[in-house]
Amino acid sequence: MDPKRLSREILYRGKVFDLLVDEVQYPSGNKGRREIAHHPGGAVALPVMDDGRVIFVRQLRYPFGERLLELPAGKLSAGEDPREAAGRELEEETGWTAGKLDFLASLYTSPGFCDEVLHIYLATQLRPSPGGPRREEGEATMTLEVLTLDEALALVERNKIKDAKTMIGILLAARRGLPAKNP
Amino acid sequence: MDPKRLSREILYRGKVFDLLVDEVQYPSGNKGRREIAHHPGGAVALPVMDDGRVIFVRQLRYPFGERLLELPAGKLSAGEDPREAAGRELEEETGWTAGKLDFLASLYTSPGFCDEVLHIYLATQLRPSPGGPRREEGEATMTLEVLTLDEALALVERNKIKDAKTMIGILLAARRGLPAKNP
Repeated sequence: MDPKRLSREILYRGKVFDLLVDEVQYPSGNKGRREIAHHPGGAVALPVMDDGRVIFVRQLRYPFGERLLELPAGKLSAGEDPREAAGRELEEETGWTAGKLDFLASLYTSPGFCDEVLHIYLATQLRPSPGGPRREEGEATMTLEVLTLDEALALVERNKIKDAKTMIGILLAARRGLPAKNP
Repeated sequence: MDPKRLSREILYRGKVFDLLVDEVQYPSGNKGRREIAHHPGGAVALPVMDDGRVIFVRQLRYPFGERLLELPAGKLSAGEDPREAAGRELEEETGWTAGKLDFLASLYTSPGFCDEVLHIYLATQLRPSPGGPRREEGEATMTLEVLTLDEALALVERNKIKDAKTMIGILLAARRGLPAKNP
């Protein structure tokens, strides 16, 4: 009953995603075209400090021209384990390393046209990395903001945080409860 | 301090999204390329029946080849108000009309490379539409599933619901409380 793929063209190979265009045949017999933004997937860290506060990054998001408050995250490298990627992105973007990374959830950002999957990990036992952050060119103006979970939740509820992965991470963490503060 | 756009090329005009490639100059002086999946945005309905249960659609998502459980949603038409679009998509996909549509939240699905914004509305005072659903070709195998909010929350918590807008809608509705059941 599903549309059958008749052909596929790779119209563009990008740095972040590729554009694929398939010709398909629907169960009715009609033919159609399906466009896919093909993305390698990504990993997200929800970094909780020993005092229970959460580390966010604020960064310019080029498609919107806005500086958004988000959880640290980034694309998976080829063959990279999402858990390792979450730890790597955390360290690169914030300068903190996680002693523990616990899976929270996977999510499909926009499954109608994009195959991106993001994997969120709760990152705890945070320690400053000796080298500090190592940001990419496009991340040069990234800054850190540290909020309590309640403060972050209030921003989600007031819709001041609009990034999907960040909304989901905070809302899920609020339901599950963060790890108890260290003494 | 933000990257400056030097030029823009529209590499593809699609049915669902366009591919834009910009040449930019970073604050460092270095030049780079930014790819944008340009999307018109969309509207999402969180439809609550008079008995408090929520109407979902299950539909094949072509990029994944999976049948996902989601809230009814769709692209905005040119110039269309998101609230009207949420009501229209609800009716087209489920065959129910909403007497009331209350804004819940906007979200950016993947702001690193895509400018898609989705607007979620709580849809209540539902009545069957005389004509029933009017689905598009790609939606021919769509089916409806009706769940209590608690059942839906359990699916989000067990990560059986993976669609970002649906996770966010259900988690926010759980925090805000759904409208009281009608007598």
